[in-house]
Amino acid sequence: MVRTAATTGGGTNPKLAVNFRKQPQEDGGFECDTSLREVVQSTKEAMLALQRRNPSIQPLLAIIQAGEDDSLLEINKKIAGTIGLNITQICLAKECSEDEIVEEVLKLNEDPRVHGVYLHLPPASLTSRVLNTLKPEKDVDGISDLNMGRLVRGDLSKGFVPPIANAVLDLLEKHDTSLEGKTVLLVGGEGSLGVALQCLIERRGMVVFKSHWSSKSLQRQVMQADALVLLGAGTIDVPPSWVRPGAAVIRCQPSLETGIVTYTVIVITITLHNVVHNCSRWFQEQQYRPWHLRSLKLQPLTPVPSDIEISRAQTPKPVDQLAAEIGVLPEELEAYGRSKAKVQLSLLDRLHTQPDGKYVLVAGITPTPLGEGKSTVTIGLVQALSAHLKLNSFACLRQPSQGPTFGVKGGAAGGGYAQVIPMEEFNLHLTGDIHAITAANNLVAAAIDARMLHEATQSDKALFNRLVPSVNGVRRFSPIQISRLNRLGINKTDPASLTPQEVSTFVRLDLDPSKITWQRVVDTNDRFLRKITVGQASTEKGMIRETGFDIAVASEIMAILALADSLEDMKNRLARMVVGTSRSGQPITAEDLGVSGALAVLMKDAIKPTMMQTLEGTPVFVHAGPFANIAHGNSSVLADKLALKLVGRNGFVVTEAGFGADIGMEKFFNIKCRASGLRPNVVVLVATVRALKMHGGGPNVSAGAPLPREYIDENLSLVAGGCRSNLRKQIQIAHLFGVPVVVALNVFKTDTQAEIDLVCQLAKECGASDAVPCHHWAQGGRGSLELAQAVNEATSRPSNFQFLYNIEMPIVEKIRTIAQKVYGADDIELSPEAEAKIDYYNQQGYGSLPICMAKTHLSLSHMPDKKGAPTGFTLPIRDVRASIGAGFIFPLVGTMSTMPGLPTRPCFYDIDLDPVTEEITGLF
Amino acid sequence: MVRTAATTGGGTNPKLAVNFRKQPQEDGGFECDTSLREVVQSTKEAMLALQRRNPSIQPLLAIIQAGEDDSLLEINKKIAGTIGLNITQICLAKECSEDEIVEEVLKLNEDPRVHGVYLHLPPASLTSRVLNTLKPEKDVDGISDLNMGRLVRGDLSKGFVPPIANAVLDLLEKHDTSLEGKTVLLVGGEGSLGVALQCLIERRGMVVFKSHWSSKSLQRQVMQADALVLLGAGTIDVPPSWVRPGAAVIRCQPSLETGIVTYTVIVITITLHNVVHNCSRWFQEQQYRPWHLRSLKLQPLTPVPSDIEISRAQTPKPVDQLAAEIGVLPEELEAYGRSKAKVQLSLLDRLHTQPDGKYVLVAGITPTPLGEGKSTVTIGLVQALSAHLKLNSFACLRQPSQGPTFGVKGGAAGGGYAQVIPMEEFNLHLTGDIHAITAANNLVAAAIDARMLHEATQSDKALFNRLVPSVNGVRRFSPIQISRLNRLGINKTDPASLTPQEVSTFVRLDLDPSKITWQRVVDTNDRFLRKITVGQASTEKGMIRETGFDIAVASEIMAILALADSLEDMKNRLARMVVGTSRSGQPITAEDLGVSGALAVLMKDAIKPTMMQTLEGTPVFVHAGPFANIAHGNSSVLADKLALKLVGRNGFVVTEAGFGADIGMEKFFNIKCRASGLRPNVVVLVATVRALKMHGGGPNVSAGAPLPREYIDENLSLVAGGCRSNLRKQIQIAHLFGVPVVVALNVFKTDTQAEIDLVCQLAKECGASDAVPCHHWAQGGRGSLELAQAVNEATSRPSNFQFLYNIEMPIVEKIRTIAQKVYGADDIELSPEAEAKIDYYNQQGYGSLPICMAKTHLSLSHMPDKKGAPTGFTLPIRDVRASIGAGFIFPLVGTMSTMPGLPTRPCFYDIDLDPVTEEITGLF
Repeated sequence: MVRTAATTGGGTNPKLAVNFRKQPQEDGGFECDTSLREVVQSTKEAMLALQRRNPSIQPLLAIIQAGEDDSLLEINKKIAGTIGLNITQICLAKECSEDEIVEEVLKLNEDPRVHGVYLHLPPASLTSRVLNTLKPEKDVDGISDLNMGRLVRGDLSKGFVPPIANAVLDLLEKHDTSLEGKTVLLVGGEGSLGVALQCLIERRGMVVFKSHWSSKSLQRQVMQADALVLLGAGTIDVPPSWVRPGAAVIRCQPSLETGIVTYTVIVITITLHNVVHNCSRWFQEQQYRPWHLRSLKLQPLTPVPSDIEISRAQTPKPVDQLAAEIGVLPEELEAYGRSKAKVQLSLLDRLHTQPDGKYVLVAGITPTPLGEGKSTVTIGLVQALSAHLKLNSFACLRQPSQGPTFGVKGGAAGGGYAQVIPMEEFNLHLTGDIHAITAANNLVAAAIDARMLHEATQSDKALFNRLVPSVNGVRRFSPIQISRLNRLGINKTDPASLTPQEVSTFVRLDLDPSKITWQRVVDTNDRFLRKITVGQASTEKGMIRETGFDIAVASEIMAILALADSLEDMKNRLARMVVGTSRSGQPITAEDLGVSGALAVLMKDAIKPTMMQTLEGTPVFVHAGPFANIAHGNSSVLADKLALKLVGRNGFVVTEAGFGADIGMEKFFNIKCRASGLRPNVVVLVATVRALKMHGGGPNVSAGAPLPREYIDENLSLVAGGCRSNLRKQIQIAHLFGVPVVVALNVFKTDTQAEIDLVCQLAKECGASDAVPCHHWAQGGRGSLELAQAVNEATSRPSNFQFLYNIEMPIVEKIRTIAQKVYGADDIELSPEAEAKIDYYNQQGYGSLPICMAKTHLSLSHMPDKKGAPTGFTLPIRDVRASIGAGFIFPLVGTMSTMPGLPTRPCFYDIDLDPVTEEITGLF
Repeated sequence: MVRTAATTGGGTNPKLAVNFRKQPQEDGGFECDTSLREVVQSTKEAMLALQRRNPSIQPLLAIIQAGEDDSLLEINKKIAGTIGLNITQICLAKECSEDEIVEEVLKLNEDPRVHGVYLHLPPASLTSRVLNTLKPEKDVDGISDLNMGRLVRGDLSKGFVPPIANAVLDLLEKHDTSLEGKTVLLVGGEGSLGVALQCLIERRGMVVFKSHWSSKSLQRQVMQADALVLLGAGTIDVPPSWVRPGAAVIRCQPSLETGIVTYTVIVITITLHNVVHNCSRWFQEQQYRPWHLRSLKLQPLTPVPSDIEISRAQTPKPVDQLAAEIGVLPEELEAYGRSKAKVQLSLLDRLHTQPDGKYVLVAGITPTPLGEGKSTVTIGLVQALSAHLKLNSFACLRQPSQGPTFGVKGGAAGGGYAQVIPMEEFNLHLTGDIHAITAANNLVAAAIDARMLHEATQSDKALFNRLVPSVNGVRRFSPIQISRLNRLGINKTDPASLTPQEVSTFVRLDLDPSKITWQRVVDTNDRFLRKITVGQASTEKGMIRETGFDIAVASEIMAILALADSLEDMKNRLARMVVGTSRSGQPITAEDLGVSGALAVLMKDAIKPTMMQTLEGTPVFVHAGPFANIAHGNSSVLADKLALKLVGRNGFVVTEAGFGADIGMEKFFNIKCRASGLRPNVVVLVATVRALKMHGGGPNVSAGAPLPREYIDENLSLVAGGCRSNLRKQIQIAHLFGVPVVVALNVFKTDTQAEIDLVCQLAKECGASDAVPCHHWAQGGRGSLELAQAVNEATSRPSNFQFLYNIEMPIVEKIRTIAQKVYGADDIELSPEAEAKIDYYNQQGYGSLPICMAKTHLSLSHMPDKKGAPTGFTLPIRDVRASIGAGFIFPLVGTMSTMPGLPTRPCFYDIDLDPVTEEITGLF
């Protein structure tokens, strides 16, 4: 026996209520409240399970409604309260436009806090555009076309089934546990919901008949059915007398009437269950998993074509796809064109509970002037790990300066079949980080000279009136001025209260023109800017001074970008940068100039690492490239941190250190790891037969000149000499830090098998955990498989990382430790300038900064022509400088160039662009 | 009577064939070949209709297949041939991986030539990922989840219905024209196809019953049905005796067997029909249509908050959405983050048949030093046109230099409720175009000095050996060197064949250090770089020389970017740039330096305009910003061209000219319109009561000082004086070019109604087509409705554009024409330097370039303090310069600064970044 449910009028969304009228118990029916209780209970349990795994997680359902009837919201809130789930309501006007709804939907789509959206809108508002603007993964009501299509195809692993359909199915199953072969009559199921129901019911093995409310044979059909599902009944109903005894009757109709609220509640609860489920799915997706990385196929050619040809022959994956494959959320990605994107730092917060992957440093033996291929080894290694061994892995590279790209060196995106693509993007503007650094650096420079001019030409009072102007009759210090006042010990905030002496102290930086250490920068090899005189126009009133330009990557701001571990940290470091000294000997900072906030604004995007991909479609971060000559020469802390979270527990992050291991690796450990708190698992030490022969006593190697025969023919004794001197020493340096070493022999086509075998054998004798040849240049990742396996093996063993020196040691002692333990010097010798500077830095409280040696990379010593592992020398320290914002002291061992020049025939002669195909030629 | 169709084995995609066995005609059945003929015919007609509208269009179906069975392809090709449609086949290995299929699908998704993709793959390969990787708009087989969901919901306006379902429906209708109420039995329709069929058949008013092949009641059901649709039959079939006489039997089963090929052909033909239909839809979408622009709602506050607060309070639409709304294809868009994107120039080719929209120039009367709001008027106008009048419209703006943003002027994104958002993006790096210009400009500078050094220190032979090096024993000229040889009249390509004299001519640019006109640039207000000495380091061997830096936007490369109308044009202009003169008086170009290819490479992205949006979500191009002091001060030709195509026939492109109309507008007409070939329809002349009062004799207005009372209180006589002098003259200047003028009075809150009315009345008396007050700053687009209507009105009248001077007139005459007709001078007076330069330019063949006057913008004359419309003066021409690449001669009237300075308290004191919220403060 079935009672008719009273109904409220139409107009409400017909998908809102399931009015299931239970059969009286004596008729073999079942208790509906049980059903509700079960649904609520299972949702609660899902919620608890979710929160056990992540206590901070908070599922949130957003309801968009038109008009002010909050009855649905009230029920929702009540149930949500029981379950512990949050609800937010967006209330639009009753006659809101499609645009307004779409706008709200878009906002909710983008809001990472929202795990489900319910559109409580009249049917006329649920247009195709509205339904399909909603992200299917937030469509917990299962009404978008994509979710409907998934349901029809039977793919329930993604998307959502409409809760009403689920409720009906639930009730049918409660009613009768053996549905197989039973008949269900669906009355009024002409819309999508009817189709969904039919699909689901049929999949449970029941036979579905459909009928219209107006069908003449309705009575006959009702009488034959084992169950009735009545959709969109409105005021009509099936007379109870038609219903077969024992048959279930399920009504889905609009109603919030008191007596039948229970049944509405079931649907709402299932919706909420979907929200919890979605949140849980979302959480699950954030956890460690092997990536489903679609690798790009390589078919290496022989002979190996030019780098740009190889790069161009491969179509990179769209960067948003790559991001999706490795678990970067769309809202964390900022695309710059199709093949590169910045990744937001918020990812670190989202994944903070995720364990880090393994951290691999690629360093090299002392190189020839031609370079030994650390970048290609790095790229080949991740290609092998990700694309071949299917282990999550990320390469973290430095962004190259544009200067050498057009000068003499060419690009730096790897080479051969181990490249970052598109290589021209990598080598040109990329995402503008170096340009941002140039802008920021030169704003500081302009501020310095302008300030000196203004101080020289104005009285204290005039300066004060301009620096703290009266705006609408009120004078106020800006926050950056308050910081300066505090540093000066003037704890006042009212400009009127400063004494004339305080005004003078405040307005006058009193920079000593001869002690300005800040240089301008350009990202061009412009040798004529090495030493210049500025201020020669008459408008500058004779305030000329000598200064110079460095290459942009030599800017302290680049070193800060590389070492900062958050936006706040970067901002603080920028403020601390010392640009010169006042006449009274006080350091003057960027904050004193009032410019540090603007610098942070200029650098706000640069701090986000740029993602690209290798030739085999595996991910790469390109971020920061501090000049190894005078800074630490390593890519950024933030890129490494992001990558370590993204690869997860069993993944690998392969990062590269500039120059030889004695410089790049030492700084990586003592400076970068100190700043980041990260600990490396293994060092890959790159060697070549060519460089080993040079260290073994081979003749001079120089760029441009043909290679002597020794380097082309087999010569085992030179190779052995190099292994037993430079290679052994560089392995020992890594061991000083307690980190195991895998030697990667970057094989050239002139290397003989005997030479290769000898290097691998001797490297192991010298203490390497393993030593393997690599063929990535000619073969891509496949050519680095042995290395990948060796690295995987080595990282499974414990590493006992330790710093080389205690940061609190006196500056001189820190320098001496590096000189003796790393370079093999007997001692150091300080020039008087160096000693004076060290005293000054100690006075200023900079004594406990780490040391960043500025030494040639062509020898372990300071003498570029001393190859192998020189001993018996004293390391001269010509001068000592400091990058206070970056946070290191840099002793100068000899003269370090900070501005390269252009040769007679720079690379640019061959660089060209086809205006029709837009293809670039001549980059390498 | 029904015959059983013989079937081939399984394995093929079951959706491939419809084997419809016609009833013998005497049984009331119908002729099936008719059906095929009709489908082919209608597809042919659709094809013809499409090609009539666009003869160059060529629909293309791509088939991805696994394995080498080409039988399907053969049939496809045959039918396609009949219809005139192209087919391309991608043949994968039989056991290809999901990744491989996905890779091919992705390529086809991105390929604009492909209008449909058919996946001829075994069912196991049609995974959820494969199906849903395919773009639904290319899924002509209707198998993706989104298309299935659309079909279920009944939305057939987008997406595709599976051709088999359409074929069945077609045949059913052929069989019986009154389907209403008839019963159809669907046997074996468990999959998506069954659901699709059921939905479609039910929507025709038939009653569908479904059954399984294994159902015990199959015979009974068959006997009752008016039509049978048999899916996935395989080897089983319905015995003919079961079928009711007259009932249709439609079999959908895998078969390519000869006898029943006809029926397969129908399905294929429908697929091809879908391709043609899709191509036609695609073509339709390219045609002019009013945009469906979702405008962002504004709720202006009083008092009006700061610009950055207003900007931050509005959430911009994702730029890809904006692009979709205005008809930019996804493949034409290169996003840079979420709110800005570059648009590819290929759009010009795609829309080349589209008529241009109306072209509106916003210019101003002679401004006060405070500026009169041309940018806000421009933005307010497009907000009114697009968001309120629903007329397609685009604003084209200049990219501001970063120098003033941190200096004294602040940002340039408009202001109040007429802004480009996010304003901080607009004012900072944007998409890096100015940085690219800086890099390109400074590469030229570095090349100049390095080349002079190398020439000074090397013999001809050494230079030649380095410039044309022997690579693997072969010497070759690079293309750029061949160009130089040609210019030198040396028509040789073999380096060995040059005579010693030719070698010398070739290798020595012999630049005269005192005649180098190329300056370095930075995008910073760095006054100390105005005049500098470079080359003072010992490495530069005493080759010191005086030079200077300009602000980056003053680079000739910026002017080239603004005037180029294609990549090729830009490349040619870059090559032509003259950087100085040789000692023998020959101009030396960037191509002579060998650097022009590299410049094009550096500028390859900068040439694509950047799209952003206004506060009301209407589109804006930001592109190029040549310094109005020494260049033409207009945004780019390419942005205007793209925008004119995008807005279409009835749309508006509103572009802005820097400075007053006497400078910016004159250059817009004589230089920019000459370069672009575009003709303006109307000039909007911006005036303010403040500037009019100044021209009417009001006291001096200067930045920083409080405004005199005259500018705050009502003063009708000053207003009238300004209207009758400067306003009248500026209107007359526009009329010289034959273009009608609408005066836009940018209303300030101190303006009285009487003043406003007076301006509008007098402006019309002075010849303006209309004159209206604008309140966009306080109200956004709503405040510019009157202006929008006036502009719409004015553009409906004819404009008779003409240039002011013939380009072939002598340089002096062109200058005189501008001075007399535009500025109102009696005559011009040339300095000896100016005369000499003009002679030189005439000798070099530069005589027929247009003129770009470098004159103060603060007066119609050369004397900044002469307001109103000065007469009776002689315009002194101090010097004349040339930008040969950009293509104009620029006479200097007085000293023009090309490098601004920083004030004592630059804007940067207030600029800050909250490291947690990432919000920027202090920009305005």
